[in-house]
Amino acid sequence: MNASARASGEAYLREIREQPELLARLADRGEDFASVAAEIRRRGWRTIRMVGHGSSDNAATYGVYSFGLLAGLTALRDSISLSVYYGAEIDLSDSCVLALSQSGRTPDVVEYVERARRRGTFTIAVTNDADSPLAAAADAVLALGAGEEHAVAATKTYTAQVAALLLLSAHAGRDGARYCDALHATAAALQDALPGLEQRLTAVAATLAGIDRMLVLGRGPEFATAREIALKLLETCRIGATALTATDLAHGPVAALDPLFPVWAIAPSDASLPAVREAVARARAAGAMVIASGAAAGQLAGASVAIALPDAPLPLLSPLVSIVPGQLLAGALAHARGLDPDHPRGLRKVTDVP
Amino acid sequence: MNASARASGEAYLREIREQPELLARLADRGEDFASVAAEIRRRGWRTIRMVGHGSSDNAATYGVYSFGLLAGLTALRDSISLSVYYGAEIDLSDSCVLALSQSGRTPDVVEYVERARRRGTFTIAVTNDADSPLAAAADAVLALGAGEEHAVAATKTYTAQVAALLLLSAHAGRDGARYCDALHATAAALQDALPGLEQRLTAVAATLAGIDRMLVLGRGPEFATAREIALKLLETCRIGATALTATDLAHGPVAALDPLFPVWAIAPSDASLPAVREAVARARAAGAMVIASGAAAGQLAGASVAIALPDAPLPLLSPLVSIVPGQLLAGALAHARGLDPDHPRGLRKVTDVP
Repeated sequence: MNASARASGEAYLREIREQPELLARLADRGEDFASVAAEIRRRGWRTIRMVGHGSSDNAATYGVYSFGLLAGLTALRDSISLSVYYGAEIDLSDSCVLALSQSGRTPDVVEYVERARRRGTFTIAVTNDADSPLAAAADAVLALGAGEEHAVAATKTYTAQVAALLLLSAHAGRDGARYCDALHATAAALQDALPGLEQRLTAVAATLAGIDRMLVLGRGPEFATAREIALKLLETCRIGATALTATDLAHGPVAALDPLFPVWAIAPSDASLPAVREAVARARAAGAMVIASGAAAGQLAGASVAIALPDAPLPLLSPLVSIVPGQLLAGALAHARGLDPDHPRGLRKVTDVP
Repeated sequence: MNASARASGEAYLREIREQPELLARLADRGEDFASVAAEIRRRGWRTIRMVGHGSSDNAATYGVYSFGLLAGLTALRDSISLSVYYGAEIDLSDSCVLALSQSGRTPDVVEYVERARRRGTFTIAVTNDADSPLAAAADAVLALGAGEEHAVAATKTYTAQVAALLLLSAHAGRDGARYCDALHATAAALQDALPGLEQRLTAVAATLAGIDRMLVLGRGPEFATAREIALKLLETCRIGATALTATDLAHGPVAALDPLFPVWAIAPSDASLPAVREAVARARAAGAMVIASGAAAGQLAGASVAIALPDAPLPLLSPLVSIVPGQLLAGALAHARGLDPDHPRGLRKVTDVP
């Protein structure tokens, strides 16, 4: 065992802190993304089929927005089981495949890529291990370069995947240079904000120590953040956490809320803010405690806690910042509960199940 | 107020019981689905963009599989916010739109359809109200014919949406007659099974009365069922319930499980069974109580409760049966907790929020 990982949650916190530097390194690698993006443009595919599990699938949720907004492409989180288990023969002639796996060893993701490639589909691996089976199976590899991730609960590989999807989308939309600059600025802003956020989230965790359930609200690109925060709270703190779009909350789950069922609301300064504001008002009317986080956190009436985050230089950058308070909350809550995000019980870093 | 809806959960239970007859009525309306399917075939679209919220979005999860397996089409749950809030200009030339809303009045679903239609995209409404704004906005309407749904928590309109997607997919794949017959057989099998299931789930609910969190596992077409059961438990019983694919469980959430965090596992007799069996073994090793439900429920080692369901005549029919134990559990648990699925607090039947 790595010496620095002995204390509970130490690797997890260290990897959260590595994120700004990692984002800056990715911003310096524009050419890697430009060359794969050029292939996407040259071949004229209209559909990007993204596959991944867990945090990788959450990053793919972000890709729906980055490819759609920056490149006018339909990016979808494809069903792995549809082809791998059930053998569906779907027309892929207008598609390329983008497979996300930090380890590059998830069996059904590798199999999905192998099947697609046998059918003549261009496949791109986004992975933290350029020597992995997934990298070997794909036509093109985008390495995350995040360094080994020691904590089982993923943090830096998630943000690296999101940044990789952003850069690939921006280059596909011929706007790569501007987004590389914006990524640099975001990395610097996150670096500045981190110490204050660590203090703040430790205090917030103390107020949530007895919580068993939580709803996490986001809309648009921040829905990826909501999904990833809910997953972190579930796997590191055993909280029954559910991610919802702000609009979906009003379609039923608002009825579930009570003072012991808090809501974490992600509030970016973008077009989704009115829907988030309306959802928060309904949650407050149901008696729920609301924790708001984001550049527009102060604009949500009735939030018990508002965690202000730096404004992103361009709207699609905000999920790289807004995930961090959720990662910190999960770590601080796990610590308060005597749980260890470095080694959650029953988990290994590479998932090898069917 | 409707007299029959006065007692807590009475409308909810009555509407669960109406499902077999409703499925049989839909099976008799093959021509409605055949004509829309003929248009899909004639125009050669390769992509079906499905939109909906809540239970309608869960039904769309099923459509990914039915269109993929029966017609070789890419059906995706499109992001509503991507176009409606953020104005993405995605190439839709290869797509048609299928909008799901029981009320036909969800504002952003209607707006999505109006925008797509203005851009020349063919739009299909699947709704329980053929006079709704959604029906008026779309090029074609497939009415569910479910009769008014009095309980706020949807049951019969969800199964009707799933059956509508099945019939449309089957006709698009030129196999409509066989699936109409299979739907009739499924309706009859469900009718026979219902009284026993009602008794059984009342007993199961008594053993789960103190539960605040639950994971619901399904894979393939049954992932739609898992999502819908989790939503029912959340909105009617205030349970922090999360739907996961069997494989996603092993990517982190298995670490959350303990004896007070039970797992509901859907076990159909299909190619996903080995993955479900493996996930259940891991959940058992973590000390979780497992409730198995499905035609293959008896094949999951270590399940505390196994709710056997009739074998579906064709694999894609099983989600129409496997949703019912979850609906019944939610109703029985709500009753045990003094909650009312007919009128969850703070909800109306039509969701009019942005």
